[in-house]
Formats: sequence, C-alpha cells, structure tokens
Amino acid sequence: MTDQARKSDGGKFIRTLAGENLQPPPIWMMRQAGRYLPEYRVVRKSAGSFLDLCFNPELASTVTLQPIERFGFDAAILFSDILVVPHALGREVRFVEGEGPRLEPIDRAGIESLVPGNSSDAFDAVFETVSLVRNRLDADKTLIGFCGAPWTVATYMVAGRGTPDKAPARLMASRDPDSFQKLIDRLVSASADYLIGQLEAGADVVQIFDSWAGILGEDDFERWCIAPTAELVRRVREKIPGARMIGFPKGAGLMLERYVAKTGVDAVGIDWTVPLDYARDRLQIRVPVQGNLDPLILLAGGERLDRAIDRILDGLSGGRFIFNLGHGIVPDTPIEHVERLVERVRQR
Amino acid sequence: MTDQARKSDGGKFIRTLAGENLQPPPIWMMRQAGRYLPEYRVVRKSAGSFLDLCFNPELASTVTLQPIERFGFDAAILFSDILVVPHALGREVRFVEGEGPRLEPIDRAGIESLVPGNSSDAFDAVFETVSLVRNRLDADKTLIGFCGAPWTVATYMVAGRGTPDKAPARLMASRDPDSFQKLIDRLVSASADYLIGQLEAGADVVQIFDSWAGILGEDDFERWCIAPTAELVRRVREKIPGARMIGFPKGAGLMLERYVAKTGVDAVGIDWTVPLDYARDRLQIRVPVQGNLDPLILLAGGERLDRAIDRILDGLSGGRFIFNLGHGIVPDTPIEHVERLVERVRQR
Repeated sequence: MTDQARKSDGGKFIRTLAGENLQPPPIWMMRQAGRYLPEYRVVRKSAGSFLDLCFNPELASTVTLQPIERFGFDAAILFSDILVVPHALGREVRFVEGEGPRLEPIDRAGIESLVPGNSSDAFDAVFETVSLVRNRLDADKTLIGFCGAPWTVATYMVAGRGTPDKAPARLMASRDPDSFQKLIDRLVSASADYLIGQLEAGADVVQIFDSWAGILGEDDFERWCIAPTAELVRRVREKIPGARMIGFPKGAGLMLERYVAKTGVDAVGIDWTVPLDYARDRLQIRVPVQGNLDPLILLAGGERLDRAIDRILDGLSGGRFIFNLGHGIVPDTPIEHVERLVERVRQR
Repeated sequence: MTDQARKSDGGKFIRTLAGENLQPPPIWMMRQAGRYLPEYRVVRKSAGSFLDLCFNPELASTVTLQPIERFGFDAAILFSDILVVPHALGREVRFVEGEGPRLEPIDRAGIESLVPGNSSDAFDAVFETVSLVRNRLDADKTLIGFCGAPWTVATYMVAGRGTPDKAPARLMASRDPDSFQKLIDRLVSASADYLIGQLEAGADVVQIFDSWAGILGEDDFERWCIAPTAELVRRVREKIPGARMIGFPKGAGLMLERYVAKTGVDAVGIDWTVPLDYARDRLQIRVPVQGNLDPLILLAGGERLDRAIDRILDGLSGGRFIFNLGHGIVPDTPIEHVERLVERVRQR
C-alpha cells in the first residue's frame, strides 16, 4: 500500500474530473513516457527486453516520471503495456523490435485452460512501480494507471499479433461466441484485479484503452466493447467506491455517445477523427472530454500545429476538458514540438 | 460508344437511386467479381499479372459478369482496381501476390512532373471492358463503374503501399500541403476523365471508393475527402448532366452526414460499423443508403448471418435501400453463404 497522504488531492486533472472547468485545461499526452525522449532511450537500452522494463519498478517509475520532469504535465501515466494482462494470465508475450508484439495465439482449448484468479502475483511489480511513482510525484500531479479493454487485449491474444482488421478475433467472436465470451470474461476479471491493485497502490485515476473498438459493428460493439467495459467499471467501483475511470474507445465514432451512457466511465478520451461540435454537444454535456490533437500534426509542427491546438481549445474549453493527443505520440516527434504544444495550451 | 439502347433503364437498382423504395431491395456485393469464385480463379490464372487482367477487355468483362450469372445480382461492377489511375498517370504500379500493391512512392518532384490530361489513352482498355459488359448485360441489370477517391489513391501513391495508419500521406498533407493539394488536384482531373469515359462507354452508375476516409481528422476530412469528391462529382455532372454517383467513404462515421450534404453524391455506401438508426434517421432521409453487412459475418455464416441480414433489412427497408456488404467480400467466403444471403434478401 502506498502513502495515501501523497495521493493527488487538488491537482487540475482531478478537479476537472470532479466537474470543474479550468482555464487553461490540464494537459498530458498518451505514450508521453516513450521513445521520443532521449532520457527514455537511455533507460530503455539498459533494461533488457521491453517487458523487463515494464516489470522493473525502479526503471519503470523513472521513465514514468521523465515527461513530468521535462514538461510539467499535469498527469503521469504508469509506464507499462496493455499486454501485461495476458502475460499475467500465463500467455507467452514478446515484443519484437520494429514489429510489435508477438503472442502465442489462443484457441478454444487455450481459453478453457485460462485459470481465473491466478494472475495477481505477476502484477505485483507493476503495483510497486505505481507506489514508487506516487511517492515521488507532487501532490498536485495526478497518477494515471491503465489497462487495455478486454476486446482490444483479446484481438492480440487471438491473432498473436497486431492485425489491420482484427479479423482473427472478429471471426472467433462470430464462429464461436461462447468461447470468445469466456475469453472476454477472463479478461474482465483479470483487468478488474489489475486496476483495483493499481488504485490501491496509489493510482489516482485509471484509463481503459480500447484501441480497436472502432472495427466493431453495432451489435458487436455492444457485446464486446460496451458490456465488458461496463462490467469492468462496476467491479472496480464495487471494491473501490468512487474510483475514477476514463474510457478511450478509439475509433468508436457514432457509438461514442452510447459508450459514455452505458459504461459508466467518468470521462471519455476521443481520437482525432471526432468532430469538435459532436464532442461538445453530445459528450461533454455528460462527462469531461479528453483529446484530441492528431499526433501527426504534432510531429509535423509549425503554424499548422498552432492552429490545430487553438481550434481544439476554442472548441472544447467551454466545458470540462483535458488536453491530450488523439492517440499516442509518435517516436519521431521532436521535443520542441511538445514544448510548443505545452506552452501554447498553458498560455490560454 | 456503347449501344445506348441496352443501358439499364428500369432495373431495381436504378429505380432505387431514382427514389423508389423497393421490397425486396436490390442487392450486389463489393468485390463480388473476385477470388471467392472458382470461375474467377480459373480466369485469373490464365491472365498474367493482375493489371494484365484489368486491361484485358475480354477477360475483364468475363469476370465482371460471373457473379451476375451465378447469383443474379441486380448490378455488375466493373472488374478493375483503383490504382489504374496512378498507372495511367505514368506511375509504376505492381501487385505482389499475398502482399498487395506496390508503387514507386511519389514525392514533391514526382508530383510536379505529373502531366495533366495525358492519362486517357491508358483508360481505353477499361472503357472497352465497360462497353463489352454493358452489351452482354440484361437491360434490367445495372453496370457500376468506379474509381478510388483522390485521398485514398493518394495514400497509396505517397506510401508506395498500403499502410495501417496512412501516415506517409497524412504527413505530406501536414508538412507540404501545397504539393499534396497538387497531387489531389491531378487525381481529381484524371478521375473525372476516367469516370466520364466509363459513363460514356455504358456504365449506368459510378461509385467513388474512399476506403481510407476514416483516418482523417475533421479539417483534413473536409479538405482531402469532401472537397475533392465534391469537385469530382461537379466535373462529371458538368460533362454528363444527371450522372448517377455513389460515394463510399469507409469509416467516415461522424462525418457521414456532412459528406452526403456537401459532396452531392446520389447515394451513400456505409460500412458495417455504422449504426442502423443513424443510417435511417440521418442519411436515408437525404439519399438512398447502400450497405452494410460485415463481410466476416458472411464468411462465418450460420444463423448469426441470418439474424444480421434480417436486422439490416428491418432497419433500412423502410427507405430507399440497396443491400450490400459493409466492405469487400473476403476471398475465403464459401459460395453457399452468398447463396444463403441472396435467397434471404430476395425472400422479403
């Protein structure tokens, strides 16, 4: 357990989630602890495999704090990966340099052999990282924990890798919905344990990343994105009443409003394709909105970046708003572009 | 020029576009002339490269007609590829078996050297195919011509291949918008010539495939999807008043309504992620809607396929509607699933 006294109590991020409309808004960036930072690359080199880094509390907490030290973001996000959960469930997970994750693809028999409740030991290193970060972080800064949403994690577990259209998982969901439901149920359980542990260790908020929600048709979105997320939110709040939870169903577009209404998340992340008038009129009236600068506009920089920042601030600063990218920062992004972004948002 | 007397005059497809609400609705499938058909695979083997097949009027017209002969679809779609346009503009285009298209990536200098108006010769083989098909097709069947939308074609020209996030084209659009605008303008011109030629050769309708529209942020969607499409529609109608045009901005989600309102297309294709109530309440009140069965549900088959078909028919048969998939049919799809689909739609 962490030193509760140091938990974020009055920072801009938490105040926004609690209902305040702050000018300038709080700001952080998805994947802010990562390869675009030279200080990250130094630590990464010394750490062995990518998962070794995720499971090394000293190094993981160091890289988690790097973007706060450099840019003064309002929130730190735990350095980890959404595939820690399948790893904890006993599945083989590797990260191949320049190619992305590789898992042993799971089939019906593999799903049957997933044992519920045996995952918590593997999470302990992550919880220790959370604890270390929270103790080193100023009280006005927020610590965000996270997990992948069951659907998104399942796409990797079934295919064994990233796939452009998530066909393997979508096909299993169509052909053998009972097995796929079992996989999703196991992921809901393990993810609930994982988020509860992070919150107990000192995370102030948790975010659920559903990166591949946008590939699902209407019925599948209800069953494989909304229902498991709602259940995950329910279980976490059952254990930790009032737990603050952000949902980020990337690409959900026309389903975003329903996602917010039915999952019970406290705030919603939006990707860069979401029109600002929709975000304002249909989402922000319900919950705080977080987003949505195109990471490639940040990468390109220049005056177009300034205009894109202003446009988002003009569109969303009238309500509860957290400035973020619409997806993770791209490794090639120059540091100066991030500095320019932070300065421009803070000038408002 | 084709034998105009044989053009489709009273088929269900054209009557739907003209405003009638038909029960059962007309049906065809994107990529219906393709690898899932054994008779296609026979012709494909005999044809040399994929582009050789596209530019062989006898063989291309044969494969265009195959799905009509087998399933009695209400429309045939020209067998061709959206990359015929960059090929006609003098760019190297190859199709690598199992990997997809490869092009020589275009840069600023390459864009400057694209000559407007020199593309029409290369299109002649395609126009001859259109002519042959129209003459062999019954009058109550519709012939659909097509092109790729400028944005989608540009993503391949800039990257030289398919890419998961279209980053190379999006980056050029951010970093060098003037050059990218020139590329888009050239594509609008060449695509207008291409569609006009297809319509003059006997196509009854043309469809504009914007397969990667869904990756664009709001401003970029206006500039790179809507504006070029609106200009393409305008140019085609300037030459051929009343030309019937269908737009298919895959993944456009929250931007679909604006796309329909601003481009001037006569009908809109929707992918499988579009909720049916939105399609009915926001799109079908403006134009006929075409879609949107998930191709993987067709591949999986069974009772879930039946339910998905019924759900779409229940949702959209109250207005002007063309039954289709939400994207192209997958090569592994069993013929019997397509038979089951056609039978079920026709039973209504």
